[in-house]
Amino acid sequence: MKFKVNADLKYKINSESSIILSIHALKTEQKIISEQLLISPETDFKELLSTAEANRLVSLALKPTENLSISYEATVENAFIIKEIEAFSDVNIAKLPGDVLTYLNPSRYCQSDKLYRLANNMFGYKKDDFEKVQALTYWIYLNVEYLSGSTNSETSAYDTVTEQAGVCRDFAHLGIALCRALTIPARYFTGYAYQLVPQDFHACFEAYINGQWLLFDATRLIPLNGMVKIAIGRDAADAAVANIFGDVSFISSVVTCGLLDNDFEPFYQHHENRMAISYS
Amino acid sequence: MKFKVNADLKYKINSESSIILSIHALKTEQKIISEQLLISPETDFKELLSTAEANRLVSLALKPTENLSISYEATVENAFIIKEIEAFSDVNIAKLPGDVLTYLNPSRYCQSDKLYRLANNMFGYKKDDFEKVQALTYWIYLNVEYLSGSTNSETSAYDTVTEQAGVCRDFAHLGIALCRALTIPARYFTGYAYQLVPQDFHACFEAYINGQWLLFDATRLIPLNGMVKIAIGRDAADAAVANIFGDVSFISSVVTCGLLDNDFEPFYQHHENRMAISYS
Amino acid sequence: MKFKVNADLKYKINSESSIILSIHALKTEQKIISEQLLISPETDFKELLSTAEANRLVSLALKPTENLSISYEATVENAFIIKEIEAFSDVNIAKLPGDVLTYLNPSRYCQSDKLYRLANNMFGYKKDDFEKVQALTYWIYLNVEYLSGSTNSETSAYDTVTEQAGVCRDFAHLGIALCRALTIPARYFTGYAYQLVPQDFHACFEAYINGQWLLFDATRLIPLNGMVKIAIGRDAADAAVANIFGDVSFISSVVTCGLLDNDFEPFYQHHENRMAISYS
Amino acid sequence: MKFKVNADLKYKINSESSIILSIHALKTEQKIISEQLLISPETDFKELLSTAEANRLVSLALKPTENLSISYEATVENAFIIKEIEAFSDVNIAKLPGDVLTYLNPSRYCQSDKLYRLANNMFGYKKDDFEKVQALTYWIYLNVEYLSGSTNSETSAYDTVTEQAGVCRDFAHLGIALCRALTIPARYFTGYAYQLVPQDFHACFEAYINGQWLLFDATRLIPLNGMVKIAIGRDAADAAVANIFGDVSFISSVVTCGLLDNDFEPFYQHHENRMAISYS
Repeated sequence: MKFKVNADLKYKINSESSIILSIHALKTEQKIISEQLLISPETDFKELLSTAEANRLVSLALKPTENLSISYEATVENAFIIKEIEAFSDVNIAKLPGDVLTYLNPSRYCQSDKLYRLANNMFGYKKDDFEKVQALTYWIYLNVEYLSGSTNSETSAYDTVTEQAGVCRDFAHLGIALCRALTIPARYFTGYAYQLVPQDFHACFEAYINGQWLLFDATRLIPLNGMVKIAIGRDAADAAVANIFGDVSFISSVVTCGLLDNDFEPFYQHHENRMAISYS
Repeated sequence: MKFKVNADLKYKINSESSIILSIHALKTEQKIISEQLLISPETDFKELLSTAEANRLVSLALKPTENLSISYEATVENAFIIKEIEAFSDVNIAKLPGDVLTYLNPSRYCQSDKLYRLANNMFGYKKDDFEKVQALTYWIYLNVEYLSGSTNSETSAYDTVTEQAGVCRDFAHLGIALCRALTIPARYFTGYAYQLVPQDFHACFEAYINGQWLLFDATRLIPLNGMVKIAIGRDAADAAVANIFGDVSFISSVVTCGLLDNDFEPFYQHHENRMAISYS
Repeated sequence: MKFKVNADLKYKINSESSIILSIHALKTEQKIISEQLLISPETDFKELLSTAEANRLVSLALKPTENLSISYEATVENAFIIKEIEAFSDVNIAKLPGDVLTYLNPSRYCQSDKLYRLANNMFGYKKDDFEKVQALTYWIYLNVEYLSGSTNSETSAYDTVTEQAGVCRDFAHLGIALCRALTIPARYFTGYAYQLVPQDFHACFEAYINGQWLLFDATRLIPLNGMVKIAIGRDAADAAVANIFGDVSFISSVVTCGLLDNDFEPFYQHHENRMAISYS
Repeated sequence: MKFKVNADLKYKINSESSIILSIHALKTEQKIISEQLLISPETDFKELLSTAEANRLVSLALKPTENLSISYEATVENAFIIKEIEAFSDVNIAKLPGDVLTYLNPSRYCQSDKLYRLANNMFGYKKDDFEKVQALTYWIYLNVEYLSGSTNSETSAYDTVTEQAGVCRDFAHLGIALCRALTIPARYFTGYAYQLVPQDFHACFEAYINGQWLLFDATRLIPLNGMVKIAIGRDAADAAVANIFGDVSFISSVVTCGLLDNDFEPFYQHHENRMAISYS
């Protein structure tokens, strides 16, 4: 499915500063048909790959300016598979690949080490990992209130599991933490999202189930096949849209994700069947 | 400098379980002259590399047994450079390599995002990054009490900065968190440590200063040139000696690190000169 | 019902210190038939009443000694009423007495302000306050594991609601925090407990329901009519057995609670009927 | 000194609700020359005293209305003593009155139990309790940034000691927690404050030193003799301006404190002399 995505970010740079951006569409699996990055006033930038995840970062060394304008635009054919997940027996942790094991560890916003009993009391009885993730995703959807402004950049899954309010980032962190507490590898996933209202960057999560990464979204705000992938990571610490170092004021952000094909059939996950989507 | 290191771990395995070990000496820089891993009763294991850091992991799929014995022994020539760090001007974050940037992010046990004001109030006035890290390491040494049993696997830098007691792991986490809060990349470092009393695995931290990783140890328990490197990572979540999945009881752990050369001159960092040590 | 209660506490006093004890049976409602406090070596002490709750405190000014022995013994006729709680309509907060209102506020170990959504999502649908408290008490019983040594003096309800392990103190704190989050006044209750195994001081909680304080115990470890009341308070900060100021080492504690009557009929609360017990 | 104080609060009441107000000037020590409370639309209210502190509360049972207007106005002669605090030897905790002991305990927003080492490392060396409180108050003033909107109703001293930003409430909580960690009783103090810019309710704290309650204010925003006392308590949980139960929207708040005498000589505490002020 082809999408045209766009992010326009504006900042006021008050001192010599650096910004590390994570707004480029990932090149793994999905196909970048065209893309461009415009920065005004003209600024040197450097493209980087994060080591573990191969996320595409852009680092900017900035001088003071009233209006730094960053505009990224791309046409991307996203790549996903929708399939039915068959019942399966328990995963042997010792058989997991090295690059998956890391996603079992607790991270800044996903303190899975504190949630073992809770996760197992609530979801341990389900018959396999797919049903566990499905159940916890549905529980988050039912119990956590989507409330803009209720959380901040320090809010973590440990807070959200009791405070039960947040935004997409918090929903994803809680999903990840509960998965890891159930010994299911899970990671953060950011992207451009078709039909997200209001339009913005979106975050959800992937769980490693039966040998593959499957996408889950406890917000239920979008069709799961309408995403253009930007980055993956352990949690939002790895995949912030912009990491800012210096005295920088945020001015505005406009994000869009438009469909270029005609035949989009939205896929929503249902908590009672075993259809799932994979982007990896 | 050549060392003979040894780790003997014993566990009771109560159910089918998995253990991921991180006790092998790293192969980067230092030279493994010989090594062997013995597991009794005989058990299949798999060697893995963690993606981001190339730590050497061993994963074991285990059946119930009264006494699982894991014995690792190696002769290793460690590798380090001791040098004087010259005064330098501020680092431009935008120039950092992609694989260093990740160590600026907050992590599970190093919530640097919560310590910006504190770190800058306490150490921001120092004239360059080296002096800042030196000062914060010394402050931890002076103010945090080394107290076995005072902390547990959930304790983080955010706790230690106020509770001011802990073990080597906690000292390292606090050092890392304060560095990152000062926009200095920092990472966790584990190893076998010569002259550590009582003998055990040791943890300290590296800060990325003027283009290189330098080792710091706020515990001041060992000569800094007596380490055999096992693993690096964001924090202890990346470099646990053993990650255990299943019903496993710890029985005992014996760790040794003996010197095979004659001419060891211990290097201790002093908080008032600019001599430092690098293992990378 | 008459009980003979006894507490023998031993400490090593390493420096000039003060201890504030809360081990005397309360005089409100229940009848103290006889009591004595023996302290060896002989030590001046002062009897105090805490202002808000009229708990009986004893303060000791201590000089260094190898073995401070404190022995309290009392024969007490406890006082309670068991009755069926009829269905009732919602309580009007504005009608509550001033001395009850304070038990709606969050306290050190009962951060009810962080649990509003969780408490209401889980128990808000129940038809009156009695059913809510009954349901939350039963939920704690089912989900929190009684595990000696799993928590410490800093553990609070905010921890226990996710970590789901603790001792009687933690069970009580979580019950209180959930009540207050549901706008039901609740307070901490300590006492000597008949048939508690192993014998020790016990803690549970009272909720203010339909104009009266009712006792609840999420541990289900004792018959609820076998308690001799020591103290009430907002949480354990108000009702610690001993507050210690100075360098004091704990040696031992022996607590007993024996029945002096013949006709004890144990009362246990059931989560499906509306029988309850009140000590106030 | 005579002051005219006024508080105008407006709320939208969306459902049947209760509000417990704490805006009346305290009657202990200071003299209420006149006062009135106007509520529109006319509403029944009840005056209450909090048990422990004799704070004057007003409880309102409210029906839905677009604009509930609460207006309190009083002319009050405040009462204080300014004096030099002589050097004194250590306080014997066992000699403290029962109603003071409670202010040594940790409370919701003042987790002194977590700050023992920090407080003693930083201020333990000072020669008496007065110098300790003076030093910690000055440290807060120097290190914590006064920043409206940086904290919320869940923020506690444990957060502020590391995050180092907040408003008057947070400054007071941190002062109280550090005092208690040094075994100095301390309590929260709210009032109308002359020359506070912008005009609002103010919070500071009292420490019990050498047999008397002395007032401290780490914000340094006001002359300490320009306060009309409203309430005392363990922390803000005991002395909130308004505790709201039900669906209520805040509309506005206007607070004033005007001087009616001519001869006001502002008293500010200096961190290097031993002049102090007591309102109790």
